[in-house]
Amino acid sequence: MLDDTTREELLDRAEAPAREAIRLHQFYAGKIELWPKAAVRDIDDFAYWYTPGVAEPCLAIAENPELSYELTGRGNTIAIVSDGSRVLGLGNIGPEGAMPVMEGKALIYKLLGGVDAVPICLGTQDLGRLIRAVRQLEPSFGGINLEDIEHPKCFTLLDRLREVMNIPVWHDDQQGTASVTLAGLINALRVVGKPLASARVAVLGAGAASIAVARFIIAAGVDPDQVVMTDSKGILNKRRRDLREKSTPAWELALLTNGEGRSGGIPEAMAGMDAVIAYTTPGPGIIRPEWIADMASDPIVFACANPTPEIWPWEASEAGAAVVATGRSDLENQINNSLAFPGIFRGALDVRATGITDEMAIAAAYELADYAADPANGGLRADHLLPTMGERDVVPRLAAAVGTKAVEQGIARRPLGRDDLITLARRHVERAEAGNRQLMAGGLIAPMPDAPHPDMGAIDG
Amino acid sequence: MLDDTTREELLDRAEAPAREAIRLHQFYAGKIELWPKAAVRDIDDFAYWYTPGVAEPCLAIAENPELSYELTGRGNTIAIVSDGSRVLGLGNIGPEGAMPVMEGKALIYKLLGGVDAVPICLGTQDLGRLIRAVRQLEPSFGGINLEDIEHPKCFTLLDRLREVMNIPVWHDDQQGTASVTLAGLINALRVVGKPLASARVAVLGAGAASIAVARFIIAAGVDPDQVVMTDSKGILNKRRRDLREKSTPAWELALLTNGEGRSGGIPEAMAGMDAVIAYTTPGPGIIRPEWIADMASDPIVFACANPTPEIWPWEASEAGAAVVATGRSDLENQINNSLAFPGIFRGALDVRATGITDEMAIAAAYELADYAADPANGGLRADHLLPTMGERDVVPRLAAAVGTKAVEQGIARRPLGRDDLITLARRHVERAEAGNRQLMAGGLIAPMPDAPHPDMGAIDG
Repeated sequence: MLDDTTREELLDRAEAPAREAIRLHQFYAGKIELWPKAAVRDIDDFAYWYTPGVAEPCLAIAENPELSYELTGRGNTIAIVSDGSRVLGLGNIGPEGAMPVMEGKALIYKLLGGVDAVPICLGTQDLGRLIRAVRQLEPSFGGINLEDIEHPKCFTLLDRLREVMNIPVWHDDQQGTASVTLAGLINALRVVGKPLASARVAVLGAGAASIAVARFIIAAGVDPDQVVMTDSKGILNKRRRDLREKSTPAWELALLTNGEGRSGGIPEAMAGMDAVIAYTTPGPGIIRPEWIADMASDPIVFACANPTPEIWPWEASEAGAAVVATGRSDLENQINNSLAFPGIFRGALDVRATGITDEMAIAAAYELADYAADPANGGLRADHLLPTMGERDVVPRLAAAVGTKAVEQGIARRPLGRDDLITLARRHVERAEAGNRQLMAGGLIAPMPDAPHPDMGAIDG
Repeated sequence: MLDDTTREELLDRAEAPAREAIRLHQFYAGKIELWPKAAVRDIDDFAYWYTPGVAEPCLAIAENPELSYELTGRGNTIAIVSDGSRVLGLGNIGPEGAMPVMEGKALIYKLLGGVDAVPICLGTQDLGRLIRAVRQLEPSFGGINLEDIEHPKCFTLLDRLREVMNIPVWHDDQQGTASVTLAGLINALRVVGKPLASARVAVLGAGAASIAVARFIIAAGVDPDQVVMTDSKGILNKRRRDLREKSTPAWELALLTNGEGRSGGIPEAMAGMDAVIAYTTPGPGIIRPEWIADMASDPIVFACANPTPEIWPWEASEAGAAVVATGRSDLENQINNSLAFPGIFRGALDVRATGITDEMAIAAAYELADYAADPANGGLRADHLLPTMGERDVVPRLAAAVGTKAVEQGIARRPLGRDDLITLARRHVERAEAGNRQLMAGGLIAPMPDAPHPDMGAIDG
């Protein structure tokens, strides 16, 4: 348990990045920039890269559009698309406001995955227009990462785009969050020695993340009868007329889950459960200690609201939780999308997959869980469910898991094997790291203007 | 005059870039890539650039979207948008096929202008959908460069987007071409000692380039009565019923120009004229020597079809042309958009102009002409109408001319003066050059795999 001083320190530390962020954002005016990838020795080389030479690759691609993966940067380039309708925990702040997040994500894509990700915040929040706008980006990009788009629009958007596009479309707030959460749950169940197939799981909150988590854990083998979900009006069940009227994913899950036909609120959903996974509203106080006490033996508590978890980990532990995870980098067991998306897209791009199926994302979840559980990488412990972003072999491992699954499913246009995928991903990541070092050493990336190093180390609670 | 050997050499030299281009495009698989612009010392710095720190700049921008120019890369980033409907001289080869050109253009934007230009080839060729798609890009970009879009669609697209968007929208095949052509014409008239206001000009071809050239030379002071235009059916005049039926820009120009009411074809358009500017179909043989002989004294011939001019320069000279220009880099007096767009966008971005008006583009044309005419830069000669892409002060000079015109017109959100604009542009260009050198020296840009240096030096014809 933390004493008051430590809590104040924690709070102060958590606020430091926010205090500095505006100043630093202004200093750099952008987090990524374009640089040449092809050699230009002098302007005469534009004769290869522009007129007249460029006509030849143009004609070759026009003849066979697949060649755009060979002759342009498409094969390593994705778009990060948002409409700014649900940015972080900030709500609908619009596309301009969303841009810093998308740029930050592009930075992570490059540095962790070697992926060139172009942030595109669109000036519409209309579902039909979003579908068309994203679809029209297809010729230029090898994949699409949807981000920070409100539900229920995001469900239809993703489903529809996955149908009509021939490149991977990924909504990180759905599939990315669900992959990492599933990975955490797999290892949490291993820690308490309970099999996934018989696990009883409460999933709180019926937003994009919770819906995707429920789908993924069921797809991974959890019995849907043993899953109980809640939204702001209580437990999802077949008697919820408000849900029946709209045929949303929440209604589908109301039909599919909750074999016992439970009703009520969060405490009723949690009672007797092996695990609770919450993506609701910032806490603390959303999950009460006495509800944890009322769960099954060795309960697992994932309190993932940002910036403040539904219950502080130390309170959950005091109430009997055997394993606790949150979304925060300064607490143990961070459930963090950044663990997944760079490796998953690395793999999807490297095999030129036409999509990222749920099976590919679930394969990534198992790979992530197995990676962390490996004694060489820290091993399985209640406070070590997942690796951290800094562990360099995570991306190649995920890329290989995702890529080989795509090959197995017959949706890889370049079917590479596991070893080749590992090698290729390592090469991409090493190149990105080397590039970053070189740009910093040479001064093209200006040194950080006296910014304190943010201490994000975990606190032993 | 060239002998046969020299002509063969010329042809061989002109084909070399095409022969090598596919191999080189495949080697690099993309001409530009994204790199960090902001310092990431280790993954903890993501606490500034991503959650939790990023929430502060997001909120600040949501409150005041103008701050996206301060806190993101928007102020230095444009999109190069094409639908692939009219690529180079290749016609409608589709958006995938257009991508190598757009990537090449992005390379030029960066290296010559320090502008981050993202190539986006859209998967629609429908005018309405293009309007919406480009408009929706506004929140992420500081400007839009439309490229290689067929006419007459491109006219409506540009006009409509200029109306509805609050960032500069530029169609390089219209305004860029017209700026450089006007610059060339200004200096050609200076060479032969004829004033612009009384110049008689034939403009051949009624595509995007010719229409824009006619508009620009008239806006710059040429008497519209003294301009005669042609399209594939002959001279534009008020009796052209086929034009009247569609209210296109060609019809507007048919009403505005040709005070004498000429009719006929190219020879009738050229008769007695001081200058002919042709953007028609690849020659030679499109303009005949006897028609040049029938022009006014000291005639000016701009034969700008690519890849082969409407008449070879040596043939035009033999027929009496006093000044000849073409679109080719291997011939003297190249009329080349690349002279204009990097500097024009540099200036528009640096003053945060809400648009690029025709007046700004015409100011750029005069600056370009004055630059070349300056004895310090080579001075005015029949074979030196314009600078070449390699002259480093062109971009800062154009940026300053364009930026100060925007300030004068009251459309600059950051009204900087000429000296500041020159300094700022120089800094951008020097940084881009230094970056390119550094990336090549450090190996992040792989050395060109034994590609011969393309000799693009002018031939004395």
